[in-house]
Order: sequence, then C-alpha cells, then structure tokens
Amino acid sequence: MRENKVKKIWAEGGAVINGWLGIPSSVSAENMARAGWDSLVIDMQHGLVDYSSAVPMLQAISTTDTVPMARVPWNLPDLMMKMLDAGAYGIVCPMINTRAQCEEFISNCRYAPKGRRSFGPTRAVWYAGADYAQHANDTLITMAMIETQEAMDNLDEILSTPGLDAIYVGPADLGLSLVGIPAADPTNETTRAAIKTIADACKRHKVAAGIHCYASPYAKEMISWGYQFVTLASDNALLATMAKATVGAMREGTVEATKGLY
Amino acid sequence: MRENKVKKIWAEGGAVINGWLGIPSSVSAENMARAGWDSLVIDMQHGLVDYSSAVPMLQAISTTDTVPMARVPWNLPDLMMKMLDAGAYGIVCPMINTRAQCEEFISNCRYAPKGRRSFGPTRAVWYAGADYAQHANDTLITMAMIETQEAMDNLDEILSTPGLDAIYVGPADLGLSLVGIPAADPTNETTRAAIKTIADACKRHKVAAGIHCYASPYAKEMISWGYQFVTLASDNALLATMAKATVGAMREGTVEATKGLY
Amino acid sequence: MRENKVKKIWAEGGAVINGWLGIPSSVSAENMARAGWDSLVIDMQHGLVDYSSAVPMLQAISTTDTVPMARVPWNLPDLMMKMLDAGAYGIVCPMINTRAQCEEFISNCRYAPKGRRSFGPTRAVWYAGADYAQHANDTLITMAMIETQEAMDNLDEILSTPGLDAIYVGPADLGLSLVGIPAADPTNETTRAAIKTIADACKRHKVAAGIHCYASPYAKEMISWGYQFVTLASDNALLATMAKATVGAMREGTVEATKGLY
Amino acid sequence: MRENKVKKIWAEGGAVINGWLGIPSSVSAENMARAGWDSLVIDMQHGLVDYSSAVPMLQAISTTDTVPMARVPWNLPDLMMKMLDAGAYGIVCPMINTRAQCEEFISNCRYAPKGRRSFGPTRAVWYAGADYAQHANDTLITMAMIETQEAMDNLDEILSTPGLDAIYVGPADLGLSLVGIPAADPTNETTRAAIKTIADACKRHKVAAGIHCYASPYAKEMISWGYQFVTLASDNALLATMAKATVGAMREGTVEATKGLY
Amino acid sequence: MRENKVKKIWAEGGAVINGWLGIPSSVSAENMARAGWDSLVIDMQHGLVDYSSAVPMLQAISTTDTVPMARVPWNLPDLMMKMLDAGAYGIVCPMINTRAQCEEFISNCRYAPKGRRSFGPTRAVWYAGADYAQHANDTLITMAMIETQEAMDNLDEILSTPGLDAIYVGPADLGLSLVGIPAADPTNETTRAAIKTIADACKRHKVAAGIHCYASPYAKEMISWGYQFVTLASDNALLATMAKATVGAMREGTVEATKGLY
Amino acid sequence: MRENKVKKIWAEGGAVINGWLGIPSSVSAENMARAGWDSLVIDMQHGLVDYSSAVPMLQAISTTDTVPMARVPWNLPDLMMKMLDAGAYGIVCPMINTRAQCEEFISNCRYAPKGRRSFGPTRAVWYAGADYAQHANDTLITMAMIETQEAMDNLDEILSTPGLDAIYVGPADLGLSLVGIPAADPTNETTRAAIKTIADACKRHKVAAGIHCYASPYAKEMISWGYQFVTLASDNALLATMAKATVGAMREGTVEATKGLY
Repeated sequence: MRENKVKKIWAEGGAVINGWLGIPSSVSAENMARAGWDSLVIDMQHGLVDYSSAVPMLQAISTTDTVPMARVPWNLPDLMMKMLDAGAYGIVCPMINTRAQCEEFISNCRYAPKGRRSFGPTRAVWYAGADYAQHANDTLITMAMIETQEAMDNLDEILSTPGLDAIYVGPADLGLSLVGIPAADPTNETTRAAIKTIADACKRHKVAAGIHCYASPYAKEMISWGYQFVTLASDNALLATMAKATVGAMREGTVEATKGLY
Repeated sequence: MRENKVKKIWAEGGAVINGWLGIPSSVSAENMARAGWDSLVIDMQHGLVDYSSAVPMLQAISTTDTVPMARVPWNLPDLMMKMLDAGAYGIVCPMINTRAQCEEFISNCRYAPKGRRSFGPTRAVWYAGADYAQHANDTLITMAMIETQEAMDNLDEILSTPGLDAIYVGPADLGLSLVGIPAADPTNETTRAAIKTIADACKRHKVAAGIHCYASPYAKEMISWGYQFVTLASDNALLATMAKATVGAMREGTVEATKGLY
Repeated sequence: MRENKVKKIWAEGGAVINGWLGIPSSVSAENMARAGWDSLVIDMQHGLVDYSSAVPMLQAISTTDTVPMARVPWNLPDLMMKMLDAGAYGIVCPMINTRAQCEEFISNCRYAPKGRRSFGPTRAVWYAGADYAQHANDTLITMAMIETQEAMDNLDEILSTPGLDAIYVGPADLGLSLVGIPAADPTNETTRAAIKTIADACKRHKVAAGIHCYASPYAKEMISWGYQFVTLASDNALLATMAKATVGAMREGTVEATKGLY
Repeated sequence: MRENKVKKIWAEGGAVINGWLGIPSSVSAENMARAGWDSLVIDMQHGLVDYSSAVPMLQAISTTDTVPMARVPWNLPDLMMKMLDAGAYGIVCPMINTRAQCEEFISNCRYAPKGRRSFGPTRAVWYAGADYAQHANDTLITMAMIETQEAMDNLDEILSTPGLDAIYVGPADLGLSLVGIPAADPTNETTRAAIKTIADACKRHKVAAGIHCYASPYAKEMISWGYQFVTLASDNALLATMAKATVGAMREGTVEATKGLY
Repeated sequence: MRENKVKKIWAEGGAVINGWLGIPSSVSAENMARAGWDSLVIDMQHGLVDYSSAVPMLQAISTTDTVPMARVPWNLPDLMMKMLDAGAYGIVCPMINTRAQCEEFISNCRYAPKGRRSFGPTRAVWYAGADYAQHANDTLITMAMIETQEAMDNLDEILSTPGLDAIYVGPADLGLSLVGIPAADPTNETTRAAIKTIADACKRHKVAAGIHCYASPYAKEMISWGYQFVTLASDNALLATMAKATVGAMREGTVEATKGLY
Repeated sequence: MRENKVKKIWAEGGAVINGWLGIPSSVSAENMARAGWDSLVIDMQHGLVDYSSAVPMLQAISTTDTVPMARVPWNLPDLMMKMLDAGAYGIVCPMINTRAQCEEFISNCRYAPKGRRSFGPTRAVWYAGADYAQHANDTLITMAMIETQEAMDNLDEILSTPGLDAIYVGPADLGLSLVGIPAADPTNETTRAAIKTIADACKRHKVAAGIHCYASPYAKEMISWGYQFVTLASDNALLATMAKATVGAMREGTVEATKGLY
C-alpha cells in the first residue's frame, strides 16, 4: 500500500505543512497540489465542496505526491466511508466533544474487527494499491476536531480513544465556545491557553496535534508549541488575499492620478 | 440597459483594473468578483473554462457590480454569440491579424444592420434589462487581440475597423511572434517597442488600449504609456503565487529545525 | 449584515410570497428570482436538488434581492450548516414532531451559546457582509415543518422552542398523517381544521406561520387565516402546468382539423 | 430504426407542436417531455445549453416518445455531428442565407455518399436501433433557418437544396433584418408578408415549413398559413410567464391589504 | 403505477439478474441499461456516485425497461427518500444488524401509516405514473443488507420485520466480520455456511434473498441455493476486466516481437 | 519537459497499444488508465465527451504514466488548442483530406514560427514541466485521420506535410467512403487494400501509422502490416461487450430452469 507521508513525517518528529481546499474545482485542487504542501484537506464542512466535486479533486491531487485528506461536515458514517473509498488518506471530523463521539468516528474509519467501516474501496485501491485491505487500518489517519469547552472538559478521555491518530484544533469554534470570539489565529489568552493545553495533552497521549492557522508566523509558533500539523489559510483565503492585495497595489494613487490623461 | 462601467471609465479617461478567470468554478469567480476589480474576463481560451462553467461564473460575477466579460478561444461566431446571450458585457477575441478578421469579429457581436449577431439574449436581458435590444450594440465591448507580427503590419487597418472599441495586447504571443520569447511582462526591447507602438496607434484611432500584465509595477507602467485596461495575472496565477509563498515561508528553516523535537 | 427581508415583512405584519425551486439549475433559479417573489426556497428534500447544484442556485438568486432559503431533506446537522455557510438566509426543516427535534434543529442553525453551529461562513460572508458573525443568530430564519399528527399533539411544545422563528405546514404530509390523503391545497375538513389550529397557535406563540400552497386563491385564503408565508407551487409545477396548457391550447381542434390540408 | 414521428406527422399532412428547451437541466427536459409536445428542440444557440448538458437532456427526452432535436449555434460541422451521434433526430441550423451554406449544412448531417458526416453514432444506436447506419440519412431531419433579407433573396435556391427536409423561420432575426424590429409573433406587415412568402415557397418545393412562435393563437394562424412545425415559447419563457402571473395574482390587493393585520 | 418487474420475477419464482453501477455517468448507465439486466442498482455507498450524478443515471435507465434501484451509503432517511422521490424502484440499505435498524429503514421507505416517508414524489410520478401515491408502498422494494456476525445473530428478528421485501448479502463485509477475509465470491466454508443459512432463513420468512456476486458460475450456484437476486460484478469491474484482458491479449508476444521491425 | 512515451515507443520501433475514452467521466478514465494501455485518446468526436468532462479525464489519466491524447471533433483551432493547453500530449484530427487541411491542423498545434498555436499552456505546464514552451513543438503528437477516398487520392501530399507525426486510419469512415460499408475491422478487400496502402506510404514518408481497431487479432494483424499505434474498441464498447457476455452467461438455461423452484 502507498505510504502515508503524513504519518512518516510525524514518525520522524517533523511538522506537516497542510493546505486547505474550499473551491469545488479539480483545477484549483491541482494548482494547490503543485505548490509544495505535504498534504491537502478537502473541506467538505465549511468549504463549498461536496462529494461530486471532491472525487475529481482527489484525482487532481493524486497527480502529485501530496497526501489527500478530507474534512467531513459532521460525525456521520456515510460521507466518511465514501471519502475513504474514494482514496482519502485521512479524515478530519468536526465537533468531537466526547469519548463516545470519538469512538464512533474511529469505528467508521476502520475495518472489522477495529471498526464498522464497510468494505468496498473502489478508487482507494487504484490510488493505494492492491493490498489496501491489509494495511488501510494502519495507514489512514483519523483526526478528531477539538473545538468546544465540552471537548476541553473531556480532553483526556478523547485523546485516549484507541485508534485516534491525531486531533485538529478549530480555533474559531474553540474561541466562540470559550470566550464568544470566533477569531482565526486567536490572540485571546484563554483561547491560547486552551490551545497550549491541547498540545501538551497530545504529547502525553502520543497523539499528533494539528491546528488550523491563517498566517505563517502563527503557524510557526504553533509548531514551536508542539503542533505537528498546521494548516495555512485556504485556497479561497489565499486567492482573496492576493487578489485584494493586487487590486490595492494598483489603486494606490495610480488610477485616480491618470484619469483625464488620455 | 445596465451601464457598462468599463466604457464609463474609458470615457472619463481612467484605466480599468481587470481580473482574469481561468478556474472553472462559480465559487472562485464570486471570490474574485468581490476583490475590487473593475471588470473580470472569463478566459475561455487558455483558462480551463468552457461554456458550461462560464454561465454560473457570469451569474456569480453578477452578484456584484464588477463588469463581466469573456475571452473566446478563436474568432468563430458560435461561442461569442452564446457568451453575449449569457450576459457578457464584452468579448476579447484572440489572434486578430487582419482587417477582415476584425470585421468578422465585430459583425458577430453586433445586431443588424451593424452585424450578423443573431437575436435571442436570454440571460442578457435578465442581467442588462428589458431594453437590451435597443442599446446592446452601443454597450457591449469588442476587444481585438493584437499579438503577432502580422497584426503589427496591419495595425492601422485593424484599428480603423468600424465598431472596434478596444484592442488587447497578448504580450506572450506577441513576443513569441516578434522575437521567439513568450514572456509575461516582456523586457525585451523589440516587444516593448511594439507595445508602445500599439498604444500610440490606439490614441490616434481613438480605440482603447488594453494589455495582459502579470505584476502591478508593469501594469502601472503600461497605464503610464496610455493603456486604459490592464489585467493582473489570473486567478490560477494569484493562487499559485500565494500558495507557494506561504509554503515557502513555512519551509524557511522551521520545518527541518523542528524535526526530531517532538 | 444584509437585512433579511422576510423578517422585515413579518415585522411589518405582511405576508411573504414565496417561490419554490426543485429544478437543479442556476438558470431556472435566476429566471425564478426575477419573477417578483419575496423569497425562494431551494427544495433539497423533494426537489431534484442537492448541494452541488444548490450553491450555483444561491449565487443566481443573489443576483437579485430575493431572499434565498433552503429546505433540507431531514433534521441532520451536516447539510443545514453547509447551506447556511453557503449563504442561505433561512432553513426549512421537515418532520419536526417533538420539542426535542425542534431544539436540535435550532441548535444546528445558531452559533454558541445559542446552538452548536460550527463557524466557517465562507460564502455567507460574501453575501451578507463582514459582520455576519455578530448578526447571524438574529438574522437567519428557522422554519420547522408541522406535518404529522404527532406534531399536532406536540404543537405548543414545539412552538415555544426558544429561537424558533416560524413554522411551515406541509399539507400533503399532514393530510396523509391525519386522514390518509396527501393532497395539495386540502379541502378535507379535518386537515383544514388542523391548518387553522396551527395558524392560531402560531399567533399565540408569536411564531410566524408558513404553508405550502398550490394555487393563488388557496394561498390568499391562507393569508386571511393568518399565514404570513405562502408558497405557490414550484418551478417544476409551474413549468408543467404552463407547458400542458400551451400544448392543450394547440391541440384543441386545430391540429386534427388541419391534417391532410397541406 | 426507430421511426421519426415528426416526419410521419408531416407525411400525414399534420402540424407538429414543438417545445423548446433553454434551461440546461435534464430535470426540466424530462418535465417538458411529459407535457405532450410532439417534439422538443434543445436550443444550443440562444438557450443556456451546451453539449455537456444536452446529452443528459437527450436521455431525459428519450424516456418518452417525444422526438428529440437540437438547434446548433452556427453552421459548423463539429457540434452538429456530435448531437446526431448523441441521438438527436433532427438539426435546426441558424442563419442559412445561401445555397452554399445550406449544402454545407446538409452535408454535415448525411453519411457518404450524400454528405460528409463522420461515422460513429455511439448513443444514436442505443436510441434508434442497430440498423441506424442504413436509415439515418432518410430519418434524421435537416431544418435550415430562414431569418435574413439575404435568405429571402436566395429562397428558391435554398429550398431546392437536395436533402433539405424543412426550414425554420426565426421571426425575431427576420424582423430585425427586414425592418429593424426583433419581435416575437411579428405583427409588422413586411415581416408577415415574408413569413407568408416562405410558407408558399415551401409548398412549391415540398419542403416542410416551421416557425418559432410565442403564443398559441399566432401558432394556429401559422398552421393555417401552411406551417407544419410550430414552436410555442420555450421552457424559460413558460416558466417566467407562469411565475410572474402567479406572483401577480398574489400581489393584487391581497398582500398590501393584509399588512398590519397580524 | 408502472409495475415493478423485480417483484414480478420473484412472484413467478424466478431469479433476477442484476447489474451494478459505480461510474458516476448517465452514459455508462444507459450503456449498462441496454445490456439485458433485469434491474440495475446505483451504488451510492461504495460506487463513486452521489445524488447529483444519480438523477441523470435514473433518467438514463428509464429509457429502457430495466428496473432502477439504489444502494444508499447508510441507514439514514435523507438520501433514501430523495432516491425514491427521484424514481428508484427499490432501496438497498447496508449494515442492517438489528430489528430496530431494519424497522427504521423500512419506515423511511413507506408512506403513513406504514412508515414516515415524506410525501413529494416529484420525478417518481413521471416515471411511475399519476397513481404513485396509492401503490408506492406495495411496489417499491426494501432490501436490507445482511453482512455482519451481529446480523447473523439477529437473522430471524430482522427477517420477520413487517414490510421487508428482501435481503441482500454483502459477502465481502460478511467474510470480514466472520473470518476476517473481505473476499468476493467467498470460498471460505464459514462464510459459505452463513450464506446458505441466510438463504434458508429467507425461505422460511418468505423474504426474497439477494447476494452480491462477481462471476457467473458463483451467481448460478447462489441461484441453486435459492437466491433470487444476484448481482454480477459492477460497471467498474466489468470495464477493468475487459480492458486488462484486451491489453493482455495484445501484449502476448506481439509488441516485443515487433519492436525494431519498422 | 515530461517525455512523450508514445514517441519513445515509435523511436524504438515498437507499437503503441492505445485505449479509447467515450464515457464522459473521470472515474471511468482513471479505471482505464490503470489497465495497462500505453496511451489513451479522449474521443471528443464520436465519444459523449466535451471539454468540461475532458479536463477531469486528463487529470485522472495523469495519475498514471499513460500518455493522454485527444481526438477533436473537427479541424478547427479552438478545441485543439484548448486540449493542448489542458495537457493533452497529442491531437487526433478527423477528416484530413487535403494537404491544406493538414497544414492548417498542424499549424494549430505548433507555436511560432512553426504554427499559429496561441501561448498559454495553463495546465500543460503542470503536467509537463516548466520548460514546456521550449519543447512542446517537438513533444506533442499530431495525428491526421485518413478516412476518405479524397484523402487516399492526396495521400502523398498529406504525408509529406512538415510537422506531421502520424496518421490515424478510421476504417468505418474509410469503408463508407470507398465501398459504402462503415464496418469496424473491415474484411472488405478494397478497404483492406487501402489500409495496406496507407501503411506502406507511411513507411516511405517516415510518418507513424495508427489505426482504430476493434478486436485484438485484427490489431495484431495491423501491427504486422506496419501499424505502430493500434486502438482496441473503446470504454463504451468494452463495457457493453462484457456486460452483455455476463448477462448472456447467466441467461443460459439457468434462469428459466429455476423458475418455479422457490
């Protein structure tokens, strides 16, 4: 089975630089897949993507060695299993607030006897190889999102769930839950303290810690805190930022100044 | 009929800051439409876009007051007329090398007696208003691409074609044709001289001059030369640039340095 | 944040004239959005629409000031949250039969501390404005469908659920449940009595009452009963009705009579 | 090979009641296909339809015995042949103004030795039967659009083109060309006289006459003039008409009168 | 209402030859629908298909008299009801392990008073006829998948669920659960014994037995065991098998041998 | 630039085993790309594919080292250039009957000074590498279809066109033109003689010879005649053949024999 590079980087003690896909297009996905990210997560929760666009996006990513993953919109078995069958090498599941929710999530991603994932890896075999059935349980990544006060309260229970590979912090929802502020790259001390707490707990439980960031300085700080999987913005955010910066550069004085010159 | 803001900016002597769409998605199109561009050209020639994706892209742009235009892949009547019927407010036509080609192009974009455009502006009426038929010929923009030695040789004949609103310089093809170098934002003197020649000729013929640029300093220089329509890169280029810059910022020392720390 | 016109009409004591979209096309959606409806509901339950077609339909509606809403297929969090993130200004949720179901529905549509909606309003911010996070809970509409005997039995409990803006009567399912007849615009007295009961209960609870109608006389009667949100047929029904009427008008005598004349 | 019902109706001296499809959806296409039309034309010229949506639309029509046809955007061989291979039973070609154009059109629709249509009727065989190759030339309909003064000038030459089954009048373009008015169901005498002239010429040449109409009284008049193929509006027009009428019926007094009552 | 041929074959004591669709295309679906299968199941679990591709696939199947069915990804009400509304004549539901799960599944597929299916059979009426509401409960097939040890333990309870028409054995998941081997056409004795047990139990309960097979000899054996619904491979498997066989036939000696000859 | 394996095989004197794609799906395309073909041609002429489905198909093929090519529907510049920009490594152009047509075809596929291809290889650079501009003219394959008597008459003129890499025989159209029989794998002596003539002429002109075949024995014979590029059937044909064979195997005796046994 094709190796999961994300797991390899983790095993070597490195941090994964992850990209985020919310534009429902295989073209933007291939564009992103060639930008040097270690992995890409197709965001089927807050991105504008559903299964019908995610499959060609997985194919587009598969033209490179970037690791393809997906965030599903909720802890429900249908889409998780479909995305794994389509070749995703990891699932990010939002709103894991209790041990029971985490166990159900993992069960959906693992074949018996470790879980209840149904067998039928149609495209996954194409991407991963003919020995997929034997190695899938050990290769595919499960990432549970920690993003509420309730999850903080149940942190150790969640982190000790057998089969959990990693967690993923959603800072906006976490801040919303803790202090009522859904900010990216939070500066609020309460939220930052929680983010630190999570990193430390992950180390104790030997679970990889991941976090959604916006800017690279923040992401680097998170790596220095022990996070081994950092996301930088998203395709939509990168595009909007660059487009606005470009227009802004043009608007500075130039346009008004030239009016009437022609 | 809804006013064409591009024509208004030209009438006021200003320069249009134009964006370029090559990702076949209404989501990236709406993202770009909110970035402040005066107009957006859907690139159906070198972009990965065809009619089936262009229609929702036009709709996405129409949620804003950014002017929607399209570049067609060739000087053929079918797609030009379809894009105008779908609500495009201007057509950029590649490879206009002769007066006859320019006349045919313009004829396809104008109703009788000025041209042979067939009547049936299905979505155009939704976007532009019920009086579309009366004002379309005067509102919709025709932009002929000047991008070969042959076009340079026929420049005055092309520019004097009745009904031609503007030209659009394709520097890559122009450089390829003149000096064998398909560069963006060309620095080659021969190509630059041609670009200057075109701007001067446009002034003489009272035809607006447009040009495809990559970076804002170059675009500003072009405006100083008299260009009144400058394109900055494309959605694909903006996304790739920002993604690579972001990954690059993360790779600088950080990742390697942290390997083995966890 | 962009105002929700449906709420405004309700606040003024008016009735919302609502259209219904079951054709999975952004073209028919834009067509309908220009017909004068106050709001349009994308029907993801019985319409032939899923998320991949709903996003361009939302964009098409957003070219006008018609309020975009969506009916989801079931009381599950995934699609509700996705549609809100995509810019829907209200969610119609079928088969709310108990207070607990209603509370879960509303929780999915509200940010903490009022609910568990996850934060990430990607397109919603484009449509609604940058202050979406602050005002979303007060702007977005929750409409619970009352359409079974069980819901009638729990009517007051359901209507008193905090955060419930409106209910929506599904007369076909209600008739099926009450008297075994899934009719549109029901004439059956038992069903009509229930519809009246619901309107009266809504007034007591200060919850807006909505109902799915077929023909305008029935819808007007419903308004006279106190309903403030009436739907007329659907795009599929309007198209089929008009097409059959047109063909019928042609078939009347004409065709047979002319056979053999040429 | 499956019989072409349009040809059968013509042979019996009857008039074909034809519907028109401009919404790019297989759902609206199937809806229309069940409304009783003898045939349906997928409008790839002024409709919002291209090949990728036309194929599922052909499949949707094929669930009924309505005859599927297509109007292509221009007299070019690529799309005509593709639509025939996809199972269209007739091609309407716009802007046939000369005998040479008509000959080229027909050549694209006929196998050697009658034309240059390339062989590969992939889906056509599924729809029509295994003996398609033998009967296609005699079964598939060619309809040339007469819609300019130039076409009127060349009418007899066009109508005598071998292999031409029918013509189709485009009244909007014809009116635009003749008197500068692109009206549906034209009342202008010059245009009406031309429409009459065409019908009479078709009888002389034993070519079926078709015309694009809007309302049924006009279509019936055209049948009385000898037209054997009349189109009534389009899916987009039928939907818009019915939607606006429905909203209008609701707005009449009702809404305003009830404001403030609740 | 259009008859369900699958039920008819069962009533006559015959076995249904079923095909399986995992390619998300209406073209491959129509291709398969013309190959002689009694019925086709659109696989929305392990196939690469979701609702947006399934609707045109249902339309494509409806051009023939092959019975259209669907396998949903999980026992959730949303998609089941949507597929029935879109015209599926049966639902295959995976992972039915308990009586309660089976009852919920069936409830989702039946109108009141037999279930909680919501009323709105938009396309189903087009396919099945105007009297759909009266006959749907008796015409549409419910097939519960038996594929775990837990289901084997609860076999009689599951099979005696009122309204259950048939079961469907998933041999890969069953083998995975029973003996840890997810094989198609299992030869393992434990799994075979379970498959036999299921067939015998189905006879006792007068429930039709179905099974997913790969090769025809195995399927024939299953028919001899009493299975009345056998699936052969899938479109993806058929295509891959034939493509590899064809390439293999070409590679045998030929290519290498001819190298250097030209 | 990524090497073109088809050219390499030709240079080594081998024959290319080519597959053919007519199903408009990236899933069937990836399935085929993993079956061992040296190259795959996306058939945009007689296949049910257009540009919007071809782009994801190219991406799907690019997950393997199978060489991606495309057949365009006609000798027109627009789609050829778009497909090359999207990463096709060769263009098959139908109906090349004269030297002038061949020159125009090749001009569309080559950058100046060898042709008029416009510069903008958006996805091609992703697939082929950053040095695409320098090597494209020498790497991308031009294949002109020889399929009429007229082409036979002009064979030497066509084959000596500078820049022509290969020809591709369309036996169905060739047979239709020569003897009125559009057969695959023709057995007719006149057609076979022409096919032989073409192979011999290709050797003289050092142009690779390709041919569309159906069955492997015929393809092997063609290789023995000197053809270095043979296509075997198509995805649609492979699927239909295998599906019908499978159903046929099941129908043999089994089904009828078991009726009434249950």
